[in-house]
Amino acid sequence: MISQAALDAGELRRQARLGKFTSHTAGQAPGRLQLNMVAVPEDYAFHMLLLAHRNPKPMPLVEVLEAGRSESRFAAGSDVRRDIPRYGVWKGGELAGEVTDAREAWRPDLVTFLIGCSFTFETAMRRAGVPVRHVEQDRNVPMYRTDLPLEPAGPLSGNLIVSMRPVPAALVARTVAVTARYPKAHGAPIHVGDPAAIGIRDLTQPDFGDAVSIRDGEVPVFWGCGVTPQLVLRSAAVPLAITHAPGHMFVTDAADEVPDMDVL
Amino acid sequence: MISQAALDAGELRRQARLGKFTSHTAGQAPGRLQLNMVAVPEDYAFHMLLLAHRNPKPMPLVEVLEAGRSESRFAAGSDVRRDIPRYGVWKGGELAGEVTDAREAWRPDLVTFLIGCSFTFETAMRRAGVPVRHVEQDRNVPMYRTDLPLEPAGPLSGNLIVSMRPVPAALVARTVAVTARYPKAHGAPIHVGDPAAIGIRDLTQPDFGDAVSIRDGEVPVFWGCGVTPQLVLRSAAVPLAITHAPGHMFVTDAADEVPDMDVL
Repeated sequence: MISQAALDAGELRRQARLGKFTSHTAGQAPGRLQLNMVAVPEDYAFHMLLLAHRNPKPMPLVEVLEAGRSESRFAAGSDVRRDIPRYGVWKGGELAGEVTDAREAWRPDLVTFLIGCSFTFETAMRRAGVPVRHVEQDRNVPMYRTDLPLEPAGPLSGNLIVSMRPVPAALVARTVAVTARYPKAHGAPIHVGDPAAIGIRDLTQPDFGDAVSIRDGEVPVFWGCGVTPQLVLRSAAVPLAITHAPGHMFVTDAADEVPDMDVL
Repeated sequence: MISQAALDAGELRRQARLGKFTSHTAGQAPGRLQLNMVAVPEDYAFHMLLLAHRNPKPMPLVEVLEAGRSESRFAAGSDVRRDIPRYGVWKGGELAGEVTDAREAWRPDLVTFLIGCSFTFETAMRRAGVPVRHVEQDRNVPMYRTDLPLEPAGPLSGNLIVSMRPVPAALVARTVAVTARYPKAHGAPIHVGDPAAIGIRDLTQPDFGDAVSIRDGEVPVFWGCGVTPQLVLRSAAVPLAITHAPGHMFVTDAADEVPDMDVL
């Protein structure tokens, strides 16, 4: 079921560093931990860390790299400033542009937060017999803004962003059970069915990523999404931030089971 | 099995506030979430929060109160500065004294960290038929320094502190399974048997709390302990910190199941 085109994690990072792989990472490096990134100046680091603690569903924190550090413990030799396929550069809380190498925009006082990504549990979903539509359709996952407020932390506030996967009704319970085993990859869904109830008007118009087909008898299932902290930057007009571009993740060498370590 | 003398949570906090209850809280308020406390100046708050993230076994973080706040969301009307039966006041990283009301030593720039406590899972242990010796003997839990280093965070470093409960060999597996369900109360043990392997020379001489009887056929089982951040204060010579006294916890009104919320 895994796409023939899937790269392994090290090769994907190498090609991203060379600027040759600039696409989303859904379906890539199957079975490996994928991570969201947001890097903010030290002045904002306490509140970003507190935001993650208070909102663990959209922001399950996996690793923090202090100012001056750029190698993840989950990928030897990695550099988070250039191994992600595509970055957002944010100024004054607004997206100022996208780059495929963030070193020019980087500042030495940036603290990097690496946050679990739901791509991580998709291998387990597929092994459990649950279809993953955006991978089948070779698209990025669809992501939506909701009207569910985060619990704020100091000047940082905003609404929850979610990813969506359509699941056959008979497999919804299994999907919940499987993904709940990955708390550090957003865990169980935050919402099942009825998009309007969380402020989503039109599933065919995602705010980020690509729309996917929803077939008869399928229920839209929603998970917290690590794009959430990007939309929070505006609330504090954070002077500079570097993030991954939605769906363009930091792919590590760690097995997707790693996120369970904390719990045991 | 629960001691007749056990107070409910609200009454315990009320008596602690009046200075009438100044004892340890083991066996009190059965089925309620109990919490460790460490409060440090804002300058140290990022690194204390990062220390908790990096060391979730000894420091499972439940709540952070920003500077100026003293009421926990888990206990309406509470004041963490005076509802704990006994406090440590730390100056320059050293214990300068103990008080039963921390308001005089408090400073408005202190950020308060409330950390899960293993007393929380003792009701579940007893329901599962596992004896809890220090409660049977009406003592504080025994706590020990180990030689296991924490993962540091900036200037904060130190070794893991553990609590110990003797468990009949046949019940060790059940004890692991039951306590693993409480990740926010230290979760599964960090070590089973052989105290010397983690740097503990003499179980009859705990560093904090009281010694308890270990009977034939019982295995000492060790859990991460929320006293750990107290012993970290010295590493950075933190100018002022207020903590609970070991075993003298902040007792909340929340049910002991609350800590699971994060995971689902």
